[in-house]
Amino acid sequence: MEPNQAILLIHCNDRKGLIAIITQFLADHNGNIIDLDEHVEKEEGIFFMRVHWELAGFDIPKDEIKHVFTEQIANRFDMEWELYFTDKRPKMALFVSGSSHCMYDILARQYSGEWKIDIPLIISNHEKHQALADRYEIPYHYFDINKENKPAVEKAQIELLKSHDIDFIVLARYMQILSPEFIRTFPHKIINIHHSFLPAFAGAKPYHRAHERGVKIIGATSHYVTEDLDAGPIIEQDVVKITHKDSIADLVRKGQDLEKIVLSRAIWSHLQRKTLVHRNKTVVFD
Amino acid sequence: MEPNQAILLIHCNDRKGLIAIITQFLADHNGNIIDLDEHVEKEEGIFFMRVHWELAGFDIPKDEIKHVFTEQIANRFDMEWELYFTDKRPKMALFVSGSSHCMYDILARQYSGEWKIDIPLIISNHEKHQALADRYEIPYHYFDINKENKPAVEKAQIELLKSHDIDFIVLARYMQILSPEFIRTFPHKIINIHHSFLPAFAGAKPYHRAHERGVKIIGATSHYVTEDLDAGPIIEQDVVKITHKDSIADLVRKGQDLEKIVLSRAIWSHLQRKTLVHRNKTVVFD
Amino acid sequence: MEPNQAILLIHCNDRKGLIAIITQFLADHNGNIIDLDEHVEKEEGIFFMRVHWELAGFDIPKDEIKHVFTEQIANRFDMEWELYFTDKRPKMALFVSGSSHCMYDILARQYSGEWKIDIPLIISNHEKHQALADRYEIPYHYFDINKENKPAVEKAQIELLKSHDIDFIVLARYMQILSPEFIRTFPHKIINIHHSFLPAFAGAKPYHRAHERGVKIIGATSHYVTEDLDAGPIIEQDVVKITHKDSIADLVRKGQDLEKIVLSRAIWSHLQRKTLVHRNKTVVFD
Amino acid sequence: MEPNQAILLIHCNDRKGLIAIITQFLADHNGNIIDLDEHVEKEEGIFFMRVHWELAGFDIPKDEIKHVFTEQIANRFDMEWELYFTDKRPKMALFVSGSSHCMYDILARQYSGEWKIDIPLIISNHEKHQALADRYEIPYHYFDINKENKPAVEKAQIELLKSHDIDFIVLARYMQILSPEFIRTFPHKIINIHHSFLPAFAGAKPYHRAHERGVKIIGATSHYVTEDLDAGPIIEQDVVKITHKDSIADLVRKGQDLEKIVLSRAIWSHLQRKTLVHRNKTVVFD
Repeated sequence: MEPNQAILLIHCNDRKGLIAIITQFLADHNGNIIDLDEHVEKEEGIFFMRVHWELAGFDIPKDEIKHVFTEQIANRFDMEWELYFTDKRPKMALFVSGSSHCMYDILARQYSGEWKIDIPLIISNHEKHQALADRYEIPYHYFDINKENKPAVEKAQIELLKSHDIDFIVLARYMQILSPEFIRTFPHKIINIHHSFLPAFAGAKPYHRAHERGVKIIGATSHYVTEDLDAGPIIEQDVVKITHKDSIADLVRKGQDLEKIVLSRAIWSHLQRKTLVHRNKTVVFD
Repeated sequence: MEPNQAILLIHCNDRKGLIAIITQFLADHNGNIIDLDEHVEKEEGIFFMRVHWELAGFDIPKDEIKHVFTEQIANRFDMEWELYFTDKRPKMALFVSGSSHCMYDILARQYSGEWKIDIPLIISNHEKHQALADRYEIPYHYFDINKENKPAVEKAQIELLKSHDIDFIVLARYMQILSPEFIRTFPHKIINIHHSFLPAFAGAKPYHRAHERGVKIIGATSHYVTEDLDAGPIIEQDVVKITHKDSIADLVRKGQDLEKIVLSRAIWSHLQRKTLVHRNKTVVFD
Repeated sequence: MEPNQAILLIHCNDRKGLIAIITQFLADHNGNIIDLDEHVEKEEGIFFMRVHWELAGFDIPKDEIKHVFTEQIANRFDMEWELYFTDKRPKMALFVSGSSHCMYDILARQYSGEWKIDIPLIISNHEKHQALADRYEIPYHYFDINKENKPAVEKAQIELLKSHDIDFIVLARYMQILSPEFIRTFPHKIINIHHSFLPAFAGAKPYHRAHERGVKIIGATSHYVTEDLDAGPIIEQDVVKITHKDSIADLVRKGQDLEKIVLSRAIWSHLQRKTLVHRNKTVVFD
Repeated sequence: MEPNQAILLIHCNDRKGLIAIITQFLADHNGNIIDLDEHVEKEEGIFFMRVHWELAGFDIPKDEIKHVFTEQIANRFDMEWELYFTDKRPKMALFVSGSSHCMYDILARQYSGEWKIDIPLIISNHEKHQALADRYEIPYHYFDINKENKPAVEKAQIELLKSHDIDFIVLARYMQILSPEFIRTFPHKIINIHHSFLPAFAGAKPYHRAHERGVKIIGATSHYVTEDLDAGPIIEQDVVKITHKDSIADLVRKGQDLEKIVLSRAIWSHLQRKTLVHRNKTVVFD
């Protein structure tokens, strides 16, 4: 995204004229809309909108937009909304366990500049990726987690994340279940990749179960983490075909390519502020 | 689509405030927007919009909308635009040659009510589908076309199409090249299916050439017909994987499934008034 | 498939030299192999083979192949096996309920000659497809099924199927659950299409549940019917992407295209004798 | 692949009994076949086979297999064939230009142990990836190539490759055209990734041309390099859907994910010795 632009993500009860009111507000203040997406969920009558505009020439100062929009628009329609500025470089925390393919892929995208983000830290319950983190000069925090120390570990992790002012967390095949307290600390800010096409094969060992069932496709699902395991709002899914020839090792190999691509697409949508969560679903603008 | 609704398709040079102006126009007249899509082609600065609203409560009478919109909006911004009413049942003419898989698929969708259209006639340069057309009780017009009689045949076809007040033409594997005159009579109203992922293998015998080249995917492309053979604005494309085991007969078999689905998706988008042609590209709203 | 050819489908415990023994048997009798596929399931040590050869020049008379192969090969290795001749035209019974898209597709493939099969009868628990069946001149048997008469109806259906010497049954969106007795009468001879990527959304109303869950892909699965509902050996699966914009009606529309293609691919594999069921999985040779 | 196994890749004119002869040869010497794939190209009558067996218990010593097979089998049938041992760790040379996404992906697969290969050197016409190569401790050879020095540079590169005993070369978005002499030095040993679904958009700037043409899918193709630019035998292709919303930058971003996956699948097939080139096509066993 270019610098000096703003993005508004809005949802509220639908009513006639909402688009006109919001776009007129931007036009009145000389804002040039770059992109606008809206969606109305008909069953519940919920209005969703993402509007992306240029700040050059916009006559409300950047640090007053929030206030003005609240007063003039948001309060009138009881909107839930978020405002982002493209100048701000998001900070991601990367959580990883034994498998490293998603970690490699994410580090490459950050290091090569494909993603304009910072990764101030990596957190793991495995020691073995220290060397890789060192190669990319990213602080690597190893936590030996067990049933007893889990609350204390999570407390330490939360402090660490807060001290780094983390914007969002990516569970890049992190195989620990986060506590409800942890999840509530970062609502809709934790992105997970699960190695199946959910809701099939939620939980442990999805490739083994896919092989056992004899499916002809395997999948991967990236979703926001909620307190229900593997049941949070889905951001992105994809599949790959398999055959009777594929062993579990083949499923793992084919699936890993899928996992890293699906996770990266979900992170991209999140970074573009194209995702809006309502109840247990994600609106993902294209 | 539900009855008693209207759709506007607009494109014009982009400028600040266009969305606000159009949506305000609808709001002022008490129109409830069901769906709105917009796109700005940045390189050329072209604004595209599709807006779909309910006519119930809309305070401009149906037969005056065109006039009022022209006066109040379209003329001011030099818009190209089209207005559709969901009550109108489109009339499709079906052109077919030797292969019948797309014809079967289209007839099934019409006859089953999946598509709310009429098919007043089928035109072919082959006699052999008469029996099938009879089964569906659709008049079948056979034309024995050769180099000499082609202009006369096309003239007769155009008259036939006009006498039936045809809205659009589908070339469902019709293997005759239409003359520029014919095409100009139905601008952006003729939808073709080509059995390759264009621009690869334009022209004759794409499956043979795909086999010869040893590609690992084959495709199908549906596009609006222009005077350049297989080079018109693309509406929909898809592919299927093949292997070294696949003979040309296998490519034909696998490709035919693709052709009928790709063509039907393109027709669906056209019927939903989700397609907008500018230069040689198609905006296809989702 | 060409006439005057034979196909052997074999599975048995794996052991060294099986391929050599079987191919030597065919070579000794002057059989020209057109296609050979084998697979060894390593975990259980099961050998699967499909071999397709020309009967022209083969020096065992057609009606003795079964006997000779049993004596010389099959008994030695305790093989389960089936022998097919490409000259025999398979007879399919088509079962259908309210939705007709798969029925249309199958009738088109049969009527156009894409599939070399006979469809001597259609069975339905709905009256409404009588007119369509009449168009294709296929006897249509309507059964008004309820809890009470189900055993009697199934008994009548089985008699009808046997009187027509049916080779296999296709449940083309047939929404009745078959009894274990019915299923056992046609083991691995009943092909179903389920409108989800199984094992997700087994059972009723998969599109509604997919919409409720907010998945980003929907799928279809074709499988052999067993006594466990929607849990039989999978033959073919595929998916299509959806977005938050898609209503349940959109899922149904997009899904129906998938269903008919997935079902037809499964039927094609079955007709090519490329499917081999072992326990609850299907080997599908390519 | 497990250690202590061998793979034979064979092609020759087809004749009756070839499978029996080869499998009997292995059985006679107590070889346990792990996997066998065969294919007959009917039009030309060419027989292709890959057979993979265990050396444990095989009674021909490893260093005599070549001789014995030549004498007993290969010479009789005028076979072209190659013999591989799974114990040998292949050596890849990585060529890269400005874009690094494929390089990152390949280094990750090698470093993580997903691929059992060595990468003794990276060759580039750009200096900028030195730091990345250093992170992975792989010697990085920068060559400033221009029209004048190209023959000399290629000579130096060939010497370098030979001194490292390189088994195969991967052009991971290497944007220099190799001379016929270079290519002939490594026949069917150079794997390229082209960022389009070939044969569409061969040559320069495929994403720009795809955008210009208004296609609805973009693709990537991995192939063996021959003297005809982007026209060598295809190993693997895949596509991703795009829409009118996608700018050239979006195509590049979406395409890069495709390129790295398609290239890696092609390399995997090559490493598994599942690829067999005949004329300008690749048999890729599954």
